[in-house]
Amino acid sequence: MLRYGGDYNPEQWPPEVWEEDVALMRRAGVNLVSVGVFSWARLEPREGTFTFGWLDDVLDLLHRGGVEVALATPTASPPPWFSLAYPDALPVTATGTRLLHGSRDTYCVSAPAYRAACRRIAGALADRYAGHPALAMWHVHNEYGTVCHCDHVAAAFRVWLRARYGDLDALNDAWTTAFWSQHYSDWAQVFPPRATQYLPNPTHVLDFRRFSSDELLAAYVEQRDLLRAASPGVPVTTNYVLGGWVPVDHARWAREVDVVAIDHYPADAGPGAEEETAFAADLARGWAGGGSWLLMESAPNLIYTGGRMHAKEPGRMARHSLAHIARGSAGAMFFQWRAPRGGAEMYHSAMVPHAGPESRVFAESAELGAVLGRLGEVAAGGVSAEVAILWDAASWWASQGRGLPSDDLDYAAALATVHGALWRAGVVCDFAAPDADLSAYRLVLAPSLYIVSARVTAALASYVDDGGTLAVWYFSGIVDEALRVWPGGHPGALRDVLGVQVEEFLPLAPGETVGLSTGERGEAWSERVHLAGAGAEVSYAGGRLDGLPAITRHRYGRGATWYVSTRLPRDALGHLLGRIVSAAGAGPTVSPAPGTERLATERLATERLATERLELVRRRDGAASWLFVINHADVAQEVPARGVDLVGGAPVDGTLWLPAGGYAVIREAGPVAL
Amino acid sequence: MLRYGGDYNPEQWPPEVWEEDVALMRRAGVNLVSVGVFSWARLEPREGTFTFGWLDDVLDLLHRGGVEVALATPTASPPPWFSLAYPDALPVTATGTRLLHGSRDTYCVSAPAYRAACRRIAGALADRYAGHPALAMWHVHNEYGTVCHCDHVAAAFRVWLRARYGDLDALNDAWTTAFWSQHYSDWAQVFPPRATQYLPNPTHVLDFRRFSSDELLAAYVEQRDLLRAASPGVPVTTNYVLGGWVPVDHARWAREVDVVAIDHYPADAGPGAEEETAFAADLARGWAGGGSWLLMESAPNLIYTGGRMHAKEPGRMARHSLAHIARGSAGAMFFQWRAPRGGAEMYHSAMVPHAGPESRVFAESAELGAVLGRLGEVAAGGVSAEVAILWDAASWWASQGRGLPSDDLDYAAALATVHGALWRAGVVCDFAAPDADLSAYRLVLAPSLYIVSARVTAALASYVDDGGTLAVWYFSGIVDEALRVWPGGHPGALRDVLGVQVEEFLPLAPGETVGLSTGERGEAWSERVHLAGAGAEVSYAGGRLDGLPAITRHRYGRGATWYVSTRLPRDALGHLLGRIVSAAGAGPTVSPAPGTERLATERLATERLATERLELVRRRDGAASWLFVINHADVAQEVPARGVDLVGGAPVDGTLWLPAGGYAVIREAGPVAL
Amino acid sequence: MLRYGGDYNPEQWPPEVWEEDVALMRRAGVNLVSVGVFSWARLEPREGTFTFGWLDDVLDLLHRGGVEVALATPTASPPPWFSLAYPDALPVTATGTRLLHGSRDTYCVSAPAYRAACRRIAGALADRYAGHPALAMWHVHNEYGTVCHCDHVAAAFRVWLRARYGDLDALNDAWTTAFWSQHYSDWAQVFPPRATQYLPNPTHVLDFRRFSSDELLAAYVEQRDLLRAASPGVPVTTNYVLGGWVPVDHARWAREVDVVAIDHYPADAGPGAEEETAFAADLARGWAGGGSWLLMESAPNLIYTGGRMHAKEPGRMARHSLAHIARGSAGAMFFQWRAPRGGAEMYHSAMVPHAGPESRVFAESAELGAVLGRLGEVAAGGVSAEVAILWDAASWWASQGRGLPSDDLDYAAALATVHGALWRAGVVCDFAAPDADLSAYRLVLAPSLYIVSARVTAALASYVDDGGTLAVWYFSGIVDEALRVWPGGHPGALRDVLGVQVEEFLPLAPGETVGLSTGERGEAWSERVHLAGAGAEVSYAGGRLDGLPAITRHRYGRGATWYVSTRLPRDALGHLLGRIVSAAGAGPTVSPAPGTERLATERLATERLATERLELVRRRDGAASWLFVINHADVAQEVPARGVDLVGGAPVDGTLWLPAGGYAVIREAGPVAL
Repeated sequence: MLRYGGDYNPEQWPPEVWEEDVALMRRAGVNLVSVGVFSWARLEPREGTFTFGWLDDVLDLLHRGGVEVALATPTASPPPWFSLAYPDALPVTATGTRLLHGSRDTYCVSAPAYRAACRRIAGALADRYAGHPALAMWHVHNEYGTVCHCDHVAAAFRVWLRARYGDLDALNDAWTTAFWSQHYSDWAQVFPPRATQYLPNPTHVLDFRRFSSDELLAAYVEQRDLLRAASPGVPVTTNYVLGGWVPVDHARWAREVDVVAIDHYPADAGPGAEEETAFAADLARGWAGGGSWLLMESAPNLIYTGGRMHAKEPGRMARHSLAHIARGSAGAMFFQWRAPRGGAEMYHSAMVPHAGPESRVFAESAELGAVLGRLGEVAAGGVSAEVAILWDAASWWASQGRGLPSDDLDYAAALATVHGALWRAGVVCDFAAPDADLSAYRLVLAPSLYIVSARVTAALASYVDDGGTLAVWYFSGIVDEALRVWPGGHPGALRDVLGVQVEEFLPLAPGETVGLSTGERGEAWSERVHLAGAGAEVSYAGGRLDGLPAITRHRYGRGATWYVSTRLPRDALGHLLGRIVSAAGAGPTVSPAPGTERLATERLATERLATERLELVRRRDGAASWLFVINHADVAQEVPARGVDLVGGAPVDGTLWLPAGGYAVIREAGPVAL
Repeated sequence: MLRYGGDYNPEQWPPEVWEEDVALMRRAGVNLVSVGVFSWARLEPREGTFTFGWLDDVLDLLHRGGVEVALATPTASPPPWFSLAYPDALPVTATGTRLLHGSRDTYCVSAPAYRAACRRIAGALADRYAGHPALAMWHVHNEYGTVCHCDHVAAAFRVWLRARYGDLDALNDAWTTAFWSQHYSDWAQVFPPRATQYLPNPTHVLDFRRFSSDELLAAYVEQRDLLRAASPGVPVTTNYVLGGWVPVDHARWAREVDVVAIDHYPADAGPGAEEETAFAADLARGWAGGGSWLLMESAPNLIYTGGRMHAKEPGRMARHSLAHIARGSAGAMFFQWRAPRGGAEMYHSAMVPHAGPESRVFAESAELGAVLGRLGEVAAGGVSAEVAILWDAASWWASQGRGLPSDDLDYAAALATVHGALWRAGVVCDFAAPDADLSAYRLVLAPSLYIVSARVTAALASYVDDGGTLAVWYFSGIVDEALRVWPGGHPGALRDVLGVQVEEFLPLAPGETVGLSTGERGEAWSERVHLAGAGAEVSYAGGRLDGLPAITRHRYGRGATWYVSTRLPRDALGHLLGRIVSAAGAGPTVSPAPGTERLATERLATERLATERLELVRRRDGAASWLFVINHADVAQEVPARGVDLVGGAPVDGTLWLPAGGYAVIREAGPVAL
Repeated sequence: MLRYGGDYNPEQWPPEVWEEDVALMRRAGVNLVSVGVFSWARLEPREGTFTFGWLDDVLDLLHRGGVEVALATPTASPPPWFSLAYPDALPVTATGTRLLHGSRDTYCVSAPAYRAACRRIAGALADRYAGHPALAMWHVHNEYGTVCHCDHVAAAFRVWLRARYGDLDALNDAWTTAFWSQHYSDWAQVFPPRATQYLPNPTHVLDFRRFSSDELLAAYVEQRDLLRAASPGVPVTTNYVLGGWVPVDHARWAREVDVVAIDHYPADAGPGAEEETAFAADLARGWAGGGSWLLMESAPNLIYTGGRMHAKEPGRMARHSLAHIARGSAGAMFFQWRAPRGGAEMYHSAMVPHAGPESRVFAESAELGAVLGRLGEVAAGGVSAEVAILWDAASWWASQGRGLPSDDLDYAAALATVHGALWRAGVVCDFAAPDADLSAYRLVLAPSLYIVSARVTAALASYVDDGGTLAVWYFSGIVDEALRVWPGGHPGALRDVLGVQVEEFLPLAPGETVGLSTGERGEAWSERVHLAGAGAEVSYAGGRLDGLPAITRHRYGRGATWYVSTRLPRDALGHLLGRIVSAAGAGPTVSPAPGTERLATERLATERLATERLELVRRRDGAASWLFVINHADVAQEVPARGVDLVGGAPVDGTLWLPAGGYAVIREAGPVAL
């Protein structure tokens, strides 16, 4: 069964609406709702006094209606009474402003009073609802990510640092405190990175973000353990919020959740939304170790972009939902079920919009629910890939710092650019941690993997030595996990495996480009690269670097490595990735014509796709397989397939024709071309 | 008599300059000056010690010179000694910074010490000068608008909220605190909207602004009552400052002032300055209930725009002044009389500039003074209009919030755009409150009237039912006075009277447009509109909304309504307003040729005006009338008129010829075409 | 001997690296390093406990290697222990945030504890190292410039103000506190300019900046006196940081340092970097009273611009270094010797980069060291000029204020524009204080000298009366030293000497221009100018000012003055300066062809330079002279010269040919054309 539903906030409505809600949920095929995410004030109106009656009624009603519940702990938004009782548990900014309630997330995760209050409300919910027949899942908190700089946090940070470094000598060494006379001679001198006079210490900033992730995780684990103890077997999770500001290492957290759950809201209303969707889904699957995960929130009818709410085009809600499911999601959940009358997010979209159920959005919701009802069998299937992109939260965070060679070193964009090029070529890829077992992949890509530890250096070398192909982009392997430059020329951690030495960085200004021997041009970044074993595949042409290597290739052990020293624009990147993928023996999900390998190269290289914006992903379960075909284009397209389309129920015998915006899920028969 | 003069700050100069000042005032025809606006430190150098002698001298001197005085209370700028005596009376920002003196307006209006100090100084001034022969008016404070977030304010805010809502249940309901667990269980939990973690509650923010307006008004009323008691019959006022940041509901305040007074500084140095001038003047007249009001401040030689001080072109000071008077001002006052040698606004322009009286600016001031001296009779005349635009401070404030469907929902721009189109067509219009008696108007326009209460819904329906015409633009009638969405499809409050239902908003990105069946294009906003009685006048053409209604017209009772679901660019808006005005039977002040109604349509539609940038407004007093004709264009123009030009003294017999930049005020004879 | 080296931070490296460092220094020809700039935490790990052993070793090692030391006091960056011991000595922002350690410069210069700690560490260093044979210079602190707004500062500010003004009456008068009721009746009411409600008082802001400069200077002097007492004869200095934010009057400070030392980092990676270099060098020479000074920091391989680190082109490091030396620097020093592994500035460039000594940068460093080793004799030479530009820190600071007629009044840009035009024409100029003895100059230029006191008025008039030429640009002489407008029309202080009166300012918007009778166009600014003795050289053409004077010339006594009332674009400014320089009898360093005067005019006027981007500067010592010739262009160029090129050792007999990027230093023989 695939999960279908969304956040449900009955506390915003009188009971008569609840009855209508459940009737509409049945009409829409909803089978799971998240309840109680922001119900703390309603559940515990005064400290220690609980009012569960209304929630009993809601859960009973949902159960009678056949809707299961992901029951939330409401700890993301403490009620106003909590602020007054424990002002020291309110968060403090880096400039010392103590925030007040009036929004959500006004808590300090290190404040003892907050943690105690969380345990109390989570425990009370566990006690009361552990055995409720509607309970399908625990949904702890909401979008963990609040950072605080207060003295509670300072104390907790010190404890974390002691555990990481043991003593101050090790900390001083790791943080390079000899620079600018910042040597710590007592633990009491260490604080969160509060407002200071000039550039902060980058390792201090990075460690504080690592600490914040672990501290929030500890708060999650406390709740999880209470819930698990009360209801063994009921999965516990929390919904990840994605974004450059989020101080959470989601890969690390994945070890502590029973199912990885993400909220996903693309930021681009144009074609980029589909690439963002695939990116987020592949990332979630990577965090889930390749297994199933759950899209916990998405928007039925909204892409917030450039200061406005873009209404999704007809059918786009379904296509996005299916794209997530194709890439491993156990369902499609939305924020939110019913649009609220007021409050800070009253115009956030909903399955039941302000206009009510007689609306395009509700009709599409019901249609999607019906489709998902016919796709239950795919839930067992997994997704496999031959290509992996390395993802490292610490490298992302560190690349957001000040004092770097260029403000254009955008880690997320670097990864999205590479991923997008593969998406457009139909090559499904995983995301993997740098220290993961990569042996199953034919090709591993490392765009801007700034931090590479000695351990990762060894692991990557071993992967290549055993026959793998590794492609590395500039500004990878520059520093160790404490942000200390690997000496001797860049990229210090990877020089040997790449067979190159980078003498100096030459960042480019906006609009400035550098010529390449291919006739293409690099942008944003260039480098003085020396060959140390590798061969030049592409050279710089013209300017200061004329004739020097720009893109290199190196044989290492039984494998191969590539190094890309400049940023390639879209077409050139597609071209290069076509060569790399092809040389590594990998390819797209489906070959529309004989000669897969050649085709992959061509498609990546030219972007003159026979299959434009046609998303093809396969889920497999043993011998069974399901091919998701989603036509995001404005034109009808064909794709070779064989089996039964579970969406429409029709057999497909060799060729599947899809109208503009159409989609199909083929239960495949017979041998399947990779 | 028309008032003429400006802010006079004798405390900045030695007494010998005072003598020169009065002599120059006589030369310039000045008959009223505002004195003492920033004199607190000079009048009360130590707490409770008053030094009135210098002010006695100044008032006596002015009186002897024939110049009357609008005597100010100096409470807008407490002296430094006040900060040290009452630090708790300094204002606090939302992030908790307590501001210090060193500028002006450093007070918390809710601080008991500040209010007491205001009463003391105002009372002392009242005692001393109530009977002074120079006293013509009391000018309380200056540009009320300072907001504070301190605990004094928190306490006052709670009192205000109790009065508005009675109990916390009603507040929780109005604020939709069920969203994000913000339920208040004790009044002590309610604060001003201080810095918080994420989006604030929009109703909380709006109510705080309403409260701030009322709290500042209470401070004004305290002073007014003291002054009234001491000098019955002497009018009391305060000068309004205009701007999106101002937390003052000027319409509400108008009930408490004896004469509405505004300060007006256009922000556009180009032709927009004249449209801004008319907009502000019509607004002031609207606040004054259609009666006389006073331009209390304007700049002799300055339009501050884009980070620089644009010097007004020769003659523009006079044209702006006359435009205000044409639209009901009782005179023209300036900030300021004499340019100061130092201080924060030393380059603000003045009637006596740094260069002294031998200057273009002083010469123009004297010329304007002479002209106004010949126009005294117009002071009795009022301005009447057939068209009203609805103005609602709360809708403006709410449209500035976060979390709205688009950042482009600019209330002030929406009104200015409609007003400007009418201005260019020569159609004089009023501004009216949504709950005002509208029965006198042929046409009522509602651009982006976001908030519509049930009472206003009924009033507008009744107005149309009785034969009026109502034109409504998108994003009107969406929410009630507590910002709760009217359910069932937009615009919930006006669906019935408009005969449409809006299913969803489709905001457009910058540069994105939507086609219309007229061949024109909408921008910034579009909607999925369903007809529910109305007929489509214009449809969308192309794109997602192809063929659906864009502009509709509906018969309702004896009247008619229009609904405009997209933003029209300048020409298209002129075209549409031409149709609407014409259909409602309204028209411009003067018809340059036979066939007024047709002409209005044409002029609005085509903007190929025979009378380009020629401002025509009539003031009437019973059978008498005065036609103001102001040629803002660079070319000479003609206009039909009959009577005597009070500016030049010449008779006008059928045709008035005006040079570029010229102006005339015709005491009209004979029957006047509307 | 010329100084060559840079900042050396041995505390960041283990002793084995020190050995390599000294060996590499020898290889590079380094003869001076700044040691200990950020060593406080290492030197005084606990309050009062000193650990000098490592520094003994470093100095001994350097001495043995033949490298001298500019020994720093480390007071720019107190260690973390200091913050905890003296939290009241941390700096406070204008909004009240107390900053914390974690960067550098976290101190309040007025805090007694900070000052005491500075004296203690400086005294201890003086005691220990006064007699060390490696000691060549004391380097106090680093880049003084930290501002604080705390109560310690408030107290010190009051003391400073009492000394400046004597009593509050004088302060109130100077600050024009009559404006906005800001009269101070007690010293306790005076504070640093903390956050306030609206525009601050400009004189308050300016005086606080003057105070900050003096307060920082007092802190410097305390250390200097200790060091001088311990080691008479060893020069003491501090390195100036340049920039619009710096609250230091470097001209005033120059009286207290034994050698003026600046840090210079250009902000433009394009050709502007060379103009910036010359500008900074001439400024430093001006502060040094025309004598020798020292480039204490520059970047071997970095221009930070637009958010990225531009790597310097090959050879550019040497050309910039020589340009500084040509203009009077006693050497070329860099930040820094060896690139650190971590910390906030790990990517700042270094003579020994991350790639190590086998690198372009180190090779160029060694080459430069060798060249400088051959140029030792030039150290005795001085630079003289016929043209001076007036430089006034207070005018700069005041022009950064709010409330001015235009945000485009950029003082630094105004000076750089004039200086750059002279640079491109080969005219070497000095910078001089407005109250300096100017009698040696043929021409004095005053771009945007906003503040002119009565004393300066008299001095400038006397200079012209005695035969000098003075050229003044708009927005000069507007106010006195307290920012009070000189009355009677602008520029009040200079009307008489210029023979003009400016009635009003007419700032222009971006993109807006005003026609001139030359066919050129002015931008950013224009004025209504009346002749009062002067003659119009150029008039406005078209628009409001049509026919009125734009540029005037006036005979005054035995001299002449020019007034320029608009901003001229590059070519027009070159043209005008050509006329002015020529008329004053001044000219470029070298005339490439007969007819120097004519040439200067032509080159300035047309910018069709025979010698494009060819920098020519002469240092002289009695009869000896050295001509620096630096070809910044991409093409080879010739220049007339005679003597011996100290760089290459070859004789030059009439014509020097330089390749693109080449440079020479000619020990001149025979009579030298000016």
